Amino acid sequence: MTDPTTAPTRAAATWLADFAAALARGDIDTAVSLFEADSYWRDLVAFTWNIRTQEGADAIRAMLQARLADTQPAAFALEGEATEADGVVDAWFSFETRVARGRGHLRLRGGKAWTLLTTMTELKGFEEKTGDNRIKGAEHGVHKGRKNWLEKRRDEEAALGYTEQPEVVVIGGGQGGIALGARLRRLGVPTIIVERNAKAGDSWRKRYKSLCLHDPVWYDHLPYMPFPDDWPVFAPKDKIGDWLEMYTKIMELNYWSSTNAKKARFDEATQRWEVTLEREGKQVVLRPKQLVFALGVSGYPNVPKIAGAENFKGDQHHSSQHPGPEAYAGRKCVVLGSNNSAHDICAALWEHGADVTMIQRSSTHIAPSQSLMELALGGLYSEQAVKNGIDHHKGDLIFASVPYRIMHTFHIPVYEEMKKRDADLYSRLEKAGFLLDFGVDGSGLFMKYLRRGSGYYIDVGASELVANGSIHLKSGVNIERVNERSVTLTDGTELPADLLVYATGYGSMNGWLADLISPEIADKVGKCWGLGSNTPKDPGPWEGELRNMWKPTQVENLWFHGGNLHQSRHYSQFLALQLKARMEGIDTPVYERAPSYHTR
Amino acid sequence: MTDPTTAPTRAAATWLADFAAALARGDIDTAVSLFEADSYWRDLVAFTWNIRTQEGADAIRAMLQARLADTQPAAFALEGEATEADGVVDAWFSFETRVARGRGHLRLRGGKAWTLLTTMTELKGFEEKTGDNRIKGAEHGVHKGRKNWLEKRRDEEAALGYTEQPEVVVIGGGQGGIALGARLRRLGVPTIIVERNAKAGDSWRKRYKSLCLHDPVWYDHLPYMPFPDDWPVFAPKDKIGDWLEMYTKIMELNYWSSTNAKKARFDEATQRWEVTLEREGKQVVLRPKQLVFALGVSGYPNVPKIAGAENFKGDQHHSSQHPGPEAYAGRKCVVLGSNNSAHDICAALWEHGADVTMIQRSSTHIAPSQSLMELALGGLYSEQAVKNGIDHHKGDLIFASVPYRIMHTFHIPVYEEMKKRDADLYSRLEKAGFLLDFGVDGSGLFMKYLRRGSGYYIDVGASELVANGSIHLKSGVNIERVNERSVTLTDGTELPADLLVYATGYGSMNGWLADLISPEIADKVGKCWGLGSNTPKDPGPWEGELRNMWKPTQVENLWFHGGNLHQSRHYSQFLALQLKARMEGIDTPVYERAPSYHTR
Repeated sequence: MTDPTTAPTRAAATWLADFAAALARGDIDTAVSLFEADSYWRDLVAFTWNIRTQEGADAIRAMLQARLADTQPAAFALEGEATEADGVVDAWFSFETRVARGRGHLRLRGGKAWTLLTTMTELKGFEEKTGDNRIKGAEHGVHKGRKNWLEKRRDEEAALGYTEQPEVVVIGGGQGGIALGARLRRLGVPTIIVERNAKAGDSWRKRYKSLCLHDPVWYDHLPYMPFPDDWPVFAPKDKIGDWLEMYTKIMELNYWSSTNAKKARFDEATQRWEVTLEREGKQVVLRPKQLVFALGVSGYPNVPKIAGAENFKGDQHHSSQHPGPEAYAGRKCVVLGSNNSAHDICAALWEHGADVTMIQRSSTHIAPSQSLMELALGGLYSEQAVKNGIDHHKGDLIFASVPYRIMHTFHIPVYEEMKKRDADLYSRLEKAGFLLDFGVDGSGLFMKYLRRGSGYYIDVGASELVANGSIHLKSGVNIERVNERSVTLTDGTELPADLLVYATGYGSMNGWLADLISPEIADKVGKCWGLGSNTPKDPGPWEGELRNMWKPTQVENLWFHGGNLHQSRHYSQFLALQLKARMEGIDTPVYERAPSYHTR
Repeated sequence: MTDPTTAPTRAAATWLADFAAALARGDIDTAVSLFEADSYWRDLVAFTWNIRTQEGADAIRAMLQARLADTQPAAFALEGEATEADGVVDAWFSFETRVARGRGHLRLRGGKAWTLLTTMTELKGFEEKTGDNRIKGAEHGVHKGRKNWLEKRRDEEAALGYTEQPEVVVIGGGQGGIALGARLRRLGVPTIIVERNAKAGDSWRKRYKSLCLHDPVWYDHLPYMPFPDDWPVFAPKDKIGDWLEMYTKIMELNYWSSTNAKKARFDEATQRWEVTLEREGKQVVLRPKQLVFALGVSGYPNVPKIAGAENFKGDQHHSSQHPGPEAYAGRKCVVLGSNNSAHDICAALWEHGADVTMIQRSSTHIAPSQSLMELALGGLYSEQAVKNGIDHHKGDLIFASVPYRIMHTFHIPVYEEMKKRDADLYSRLEKAGFLLDFGVDGSGLFMKYLRRGSGYYIDVGASELVANGSIHLKSGVNIERVNERSVTLTDGTELPADLLVYATGYGSMNGWLADLISPEIADKVGKCWGLGSNTPKDPGPWEGELRNMWKPTQVENLWFHGGNLHQSRHYSQFLALQLKARMEGIDTPVYERAPSYHTR
């Protein structure tokens, strides 16, 4: 343990020692008494085999009563010096359980725990082969008939999915599937990643031309292999595509590109999934134990049913099908929607000389990229953070340490500041008729992302075009009727249209299950994403964690992985450990599996 | 400067302050008086625009007299705490010159400098765009007609070498050319790398099947992008091939594969090279300012002229042309030579069931891989070194800080230890008739590598086969005559032979120039590699540095890059800075350009 030389470190060391001692002797009352009444213990797999936040002393007590004896936590040790700011002591620690090692974070107020985070980092006996444990590579000595690395890789590629069955099949080979695949590879979990595109990275390459990541580089690293230190702050889509392709190869993933998932069903007799694929035109049936959906953060495109749409003579498509602006120079374009995709598409059309109108149905949160980077992410993910000793590994844990229940209170001041800083842009947008919001409670972009996955635009330039009228705006209206060459709005306006883009979002991820497995299974799993915050598009009851993400669902052996690059990186760790534990036959009793309250 | 809290740090701080002050006031006598009589100042580009070791006080004085006024060294600052062992104080420092920033290392004995290393790290005003200086990537805002990253890369690829001429052409796209290319790319030096193979990495992939790197992973990183932490200790050849291919793409190198260099000449009128290539069957003429040869550590294969060879009815070829063992099961194979290639080929033939005899003409140094790794490299390049704070960046500088003149004295104890540790193997090899040596002065493998680039085998298993007779051995003999189906040795023995492999090494790198440019230019540049140690195959006079490597040669604008992965990584930094300075018109007066004493 660190020599407790400072007052915050002494406070943290005392708390941790008391906590460890209470847990060691099974004294749950004393352990619970070390928490504030209004406290949170977030556990990522280490105690609960779940991703779950215990909110308040009673919930903490209940979890310990259910899980303490089996978990056998021990070896708590403070890492480094604790720090104190605004009366809150921050401390890091490591610990072990009967089957795993972990890392934790603690916030103390007045000597009692306000927030506690416990995360599993590795399973004992199944550590990744890194550092001192790395494989030798060369088999020194001379061995008749031995195979080399390339031959073994080719043998594996030829066998897996045909003569040998994978433990895990991941549907979707974007950043999520790739990051999870890399973790599983390191853990020795035979995995096939299924991707419909021809090459890893194509899901980025195929998007619109000017796309760059909206999040900065420090937030975007994949597991194990950080971007080089000259990587752009906002990486262009094709460069990210190349990185993903290279990463997939270097990490030796079994990546089945040009492969479509057609059908899946769980075979009760064998207790394995039966996943029917079309791989380069041929049918293949895989029989994995575990099935993971990693198709992004959303499900099927939402296309509203609008009277007359079937008679439209121009082009119409959902934003996800938009081919790019090149064909629309000089044409009249109408884009329904006002979130990220709508803005990006409007801007690209304008760049290419189209006459473009955005239809804003309801208010939208605008977060200028520079402000977002500096005010919201900079403390954890920036060059300055790295200099302060907060690399993305540490940043991820700090991010994870804030319970969702109180996360908005951490965000509200950020957006208060953004309102001031970008007052001029906001004022000009309002003058142009744009309907602004900052979330129902003023907590801004990230809470909207977590609650509903929509409702905002990270401004990388289009807002200026809206403000100055380059992109025409009709707000507070919807399309009432589609005509052959125009649309009629709910205020009676008629807009001529050669192109109609529905930038109207997506359904929930479990929508994919309805087609691939069955509507019944989709409904049993229920809605994915969202916190149950009882805010627009995120109905209650309160869940405390993202629905169905990276944790056991209501259907055994069926999992969801996804999110942005940060989430794909960090949460793939916990999903991979859950899958590895199951493969190795480690008992994984799930504490308080989340019920499903909403079907889609 | 570091707070001088320890005695070694105080000693180093005092020395550095005195040295800096003397240099600042142009007081060369005082500066020189701070060195031992028997001292060394090795400079990598920072003071001399050369790679040069000043040996002794007089040489140091002469260098300062020539270079101090122009260099304007300043801002010397100790880095971290100095350490002391066996009466030698080790210290790190940073410094600046008029045009550059640098890093140095100092060894003090009794308060005076024993060794001093000064290295250039970056040119002022031409820093790499990393960290805080990284590019933004996204052009936020909306710009009519802008091109994205992919379009710009494609434009560059289409133009460079056709409508725009590169500053630098690198002949050879193995690890050396690729590492240098990455450095030049970061410095914004337009470069084309010419490689005859179809893909980056093929020069590894095409080698014999069981090949793995003979050096451990910590020694082998490329610049900027370290291997992931699960990379094998000894990477298999195809895995390294994939890494090089990926690296070339991620680093955005202009890599012309399937391209052969046919002819080059320097055009005095334009002061540019004219390099004629055949690229995918079409002739292209490039006109770079600088021409770099990066073809490994050696030149053309040496094939001895042996009477009767033209009448041999079996297969015969140089080791570099050996197709692998597959065709020779059950056949009689004779391998002439006893260094790395000979051992590797003999072992692979034996593995595949051939009857193989090694002809050892003269003694060979055998260094068991595990001992080499633990005894020779472990202090600077190992997991333990990394834990001790010596990553490969620091390891490279410590390595570079040992002057070649006294380097053997650092190595002799290592091989004394190896003799003891591996006594059993050595004794059994001698019993089998194998002629062993440890270098003329007992300094072992790395000194042989530097002096002559040959004369050793890093034992990864074949020595056991020689010791136990699986590989037959004839030592102290040569082949006197080749017959139709046998060879006759100088001791009169006749060996039947279906295959005859000449594992007889390579000529000097400047051999390439004779064909590509002219024999006159090849001879003017002279022999590459070797130190002038006056030991076998490394004739004097003493040079103090490797001949012609990474530094100005006797032919302007003509350079050699190469060596193992460690050297390719580290010395590419200094060659790249020399090339960048020339491109930017920075004055680069070369201090004491090395003369050429030997033509090949």
